Amino acid sequence: MTTSMTREDYEQRMVRAGRAAADAGLAGLVVTPGPDLPWLCGYRPTAVTERLTALVIEPGRRARLLVPVLEQPDAERSPGAGALEVTGWSDGSDPYEQLAKWMDPKGRYGVSDATWALHLLGLQRTLPGSAYAGLTEVLPMLRAVKDAHEVAMLAAAGAAADATYEEILGVRFGGRRESDVAADLARLLVEHGHSQVDFTIVGSGPNGANPHHEAGERVIEDGDMVVLDFGGLKDGYGSDTTRTVHVGEASAEERKVHDIVREAQQAAFEAVRPGVACQEVDRVARRVIKAAGYGEYFIHRTGHGIGVTTHEPPYMVEGEHLPLVPGMCFSIEPGIYLPGRFGVRIEDIVTCTETGGRRLNDTGREMAVVR
Amino acid sequence: MTTSMTREDYEQRMVRAGRAAADAGLAGLVVTPGPDLPWLCGYRPTAVTERLTALVIEPGRRARLLVPVLEQPDAERSPGAGALEVTGWSDGSDPYEQLAKWMDPKGRYGVSDATWALHLLGLQRTLPGSAYAGLTEVLPMLRAVKDAHEVAMLAAAGAAADATYEEILGVRFGGRRESDVAADLARLLVEHGHSQVDFTIVGSGPNGANPHHEAGERVIEDGDMVVLDFGGLKDGYGSDTTRTVHVGEASAEERKVHDIVREAQQAAFEAVRPGVACQEVDRVARRVIKAAGYGEYFIHRTGHGIGVTTHEPPYMVEGEHLPLVPGMCFSIEPGIYLPGRFGVRIEDIVTCTETGGRRLNDTGREMAVVR
Repeated sequence: MTTSMTREDYEQRMVRAGRAAADAGLAGLVVTPGPDLPWLCGYRPTAVTERLTALVIEPGRRARLLVPVLEQPDAERSPGAGALEVTGWSDGSDPYEQLAKWMDPKGRYGVSDATWALHLLGLQRTLPGSAYAGLTEVLPMLRAVKDAHEVAMLAAAGAAADATYEEILGVRFGGRRESDVAADLARLLVEHGHSQVDFTIVGSGPNGANPHHEAGERVIEDGDMVVLDFGGLKDGYGSDTTRTVHVGEASAEERKVHDIVREAQQAAFEAVRPGVACQEVDRVARRVIKAAGYGEYFIHRTGHGIGVTTHEPPYMVEGEHLPLVPGMCFSIEPGIYLPGRFGVRIEDIVTCTETGGRRLNDTGREMAVVR
Repeated sequence: MTTSMTREDYEQRMVRAGRAAADAGLAGLVVTPGPDLPWLCGYRPTAVTERLTALVIEPGRRARLLVPVLEQPDAERSPGAGALEVTGWSDGSDPYEQLAKWMDPKGRYGVSDATWALHLLGLQRTLPGSAYAGLTEVLPMLRAVKDAHEVAMLAAAGAAADATYEEILGVRFGGRRESDVAADLARLLVEHGHSQVDFTIVGSGPNGANPHHEAGERVIEDGDMVVLDFGGLKDGYGSDTTRTVHVGEASAEERKVHDIVREAQQAAFEAVRPGVACQEVDRVARRVIKAAGYGEYFIHRTGHGIGVTTHEPPYMVEGEHLPLVPGMCFSIEPGIYLPGRFGVRIEDIVTCTETGGRRLNDTGREMAVVR
C-alpha cells in the first residue's frame, strides 16, 4: 500500500465495504490475509500461516480484527489500526469460537477468496447456521473500481513496464537462454521501481505456444518469435504487459498472425466504455481472431482486473455480465497459439473512463525485431 | 522437491494417501496448490491463482489432476505426471462441475488446508451432499512422518542453518540496524544452499520481547539481547533455528533468563521419544519456565512440524494428543518475553527416533557474545 493512506482513508473503505455488504444482503464480511486485508484496513501480516487472522466488517459497526497474540503488536502499529478493535488469541485457544462471538449465527457472510479452507471449515463448524459466499463472487466490485489515486499508481507501474520493454529491446536474444532474458526483465522491472516481480515469461519459438510457459533453458534462436509477459508490484500496485518480438526477419505467416492479434487487441480496446458488459470486450477480440480463421487458437479469456493484485475482478470473459464502470482497470490480452510452432500475445492494462478506454501502458505494439 | 523422486515414488505416496483417507472414513482427498500438491504428485504450478487446480485422490483409483488448460503442458511434464490422469479446463467453463464428476456426491473429503475458500465454496455449491474436513485435522500424519531420505534433507537444511549461525557471530551487531543483520542472515542462508529464505527475525532489546517481530530500523546497541530466528528451504526442505545472542557483557538477569530457556529447551528435547504425546513436549518446557517464575512470559506453543513447509503438523501444543512417531520432525522453541525489555528464544529442529530425540541443527545453545 502507499504511505499516503491514513486511518481515515481505511475507515472510509471499511464503512463503504460494510454498506456494500448490506446492499448485497450480507450480514458482513470475513477477510483473512491476502490483498483485501491490507486494502481494507492497512494491515499486512508478515506471513500467512495456519494461525487465524481475520477482519470482521459488519454494517454500522466498528470493524474488528482477530490476530494471533504474537502478531498483535504489529497489527496495532499498522496505519489503519486506529479504525479497528484489535483482539489477540493465544495458542491452545479456539480462534473460531472467538470470531464466532462477533458474528450473527444465522448470518450470510462474504469471505475473502483466498481464505484457507481450514479457516472456513472452522467457522462452518462453529456456526453451523451461518453461510458464506466468495467475496469476489458476491462483491466483485469491492476493489474493482479504482479511485484517481489508484489509477495514478497503476499508471506509474505501467510506465515502469513500458520503460522495461523499451530497454529489453536492446539486449541480445539470439544464443541466450529464455531464463537469461527473464532475469534481464526482472532486473529492469526492479530498476524501474518495482518492489516485487511476479512473472517474467519468455516463451520462444514453440514455447510461446504455451500461454503460461514461464522461462526455461531453451536457447533462443534466430528466426524465433518470443512472447514477453512481465509484471509485478510497484508501490503496491500492479503492472502486466505482453509484447511479442521476433529475432531477425519474420516470415509472412508470423507477420500475419501478429497483425491479427494486434487488430484484435485494438478492437477490444476500442470497445471499452461505461455500460459495456465485460464479456463484450472478450467477444470483440475473439470475433476478430475468429474471422481471420484462428478462433480455435485463442485459448484463454481476454483479460483480468488489476490493482493491489495482478489478477482480480473484473474478468473479460464470456459469461461475465458486469458492466464496465469508470475507474475499472484490467488487461486486454488476446493471443494466438500454434502448438509446436509459435505464439503471439499483446497485452495492455486499460482503464475505463467516462469517454472510453485509456491505456496505462502504451509502448509500441508493432512487432519489434530484436537481435 | 528433490530431483531424486520418481514417478513410482509419487505413485506410492498417492496410494498411501488414498489408503489413509479410507482408514479415516473419507471418500478421498481434494488437494489444491500448496505444499501437499508437489509432495503428493510432483506438480508445483508456477503461481497460485483464482483458476482451480485440484488433485483428487480416491482409494483404489488412479489419481486425477484438474488444471487450467493453459497450465496443462506444465502439469504433463511434472515428474509424477505418469501416475496421474491430467485433465484441462477452459476459461468460461465451470471447473467445479468438472471436479464434481470425479467425486462421490455424498462423500466426505479431506481438503488441503490452504485451499481457497472460493474453491471450497464452489465444491459445496456443486455437491451440496458432500462434506469436507481440513487435511491436517483429519490426516495430521499424512506428511508428518518423514522417511529416511526426508530426514536427511532436513538435516542438510539444518546444517546450512548451523553454518549460517556460526558465520553471523562474526559480523558486527552494535551500531547496525536489525535489517542489516537480517540481510546478512539471508545472504548466508543462500550461500549455504538455501533456495528460499522464509524469515530472518532480528529482535534486538525490547523488540526481542515480540516473538514475531521481524527486523526493523532499530539500531542495535551495546548491551542488547538479540533474538535471531531464521530459516527457509534448501532443496525443498525447511530449516528453522533460533539463537539469542548478546552484544557485549550480559547482566546477571539476562544470563539467568537465557539459562532458564536453555534448560527448558533441553528438558523438552529429552522428553522426545516414541509414544509421548505432542502436548507433553510443550508441558515439559512450560514446567521448567513456570518453576523459575516466568510462566506468564512464555506466550506461544513449544513447536511445530517441519518438512516441505516450515510450519506443519505435528504441533507441540497443549491439547495435541498425537503420539510422537519415529520420523516426525519438529521444532522445540521455548522462549521468555519481558515486555519493553528483552526476549530469549532457543530453537532446534528435532526428529523423533526409536530411542529418543535427535537434533537436526545443533550449533551451540549457550549465550554467544557478539560485537
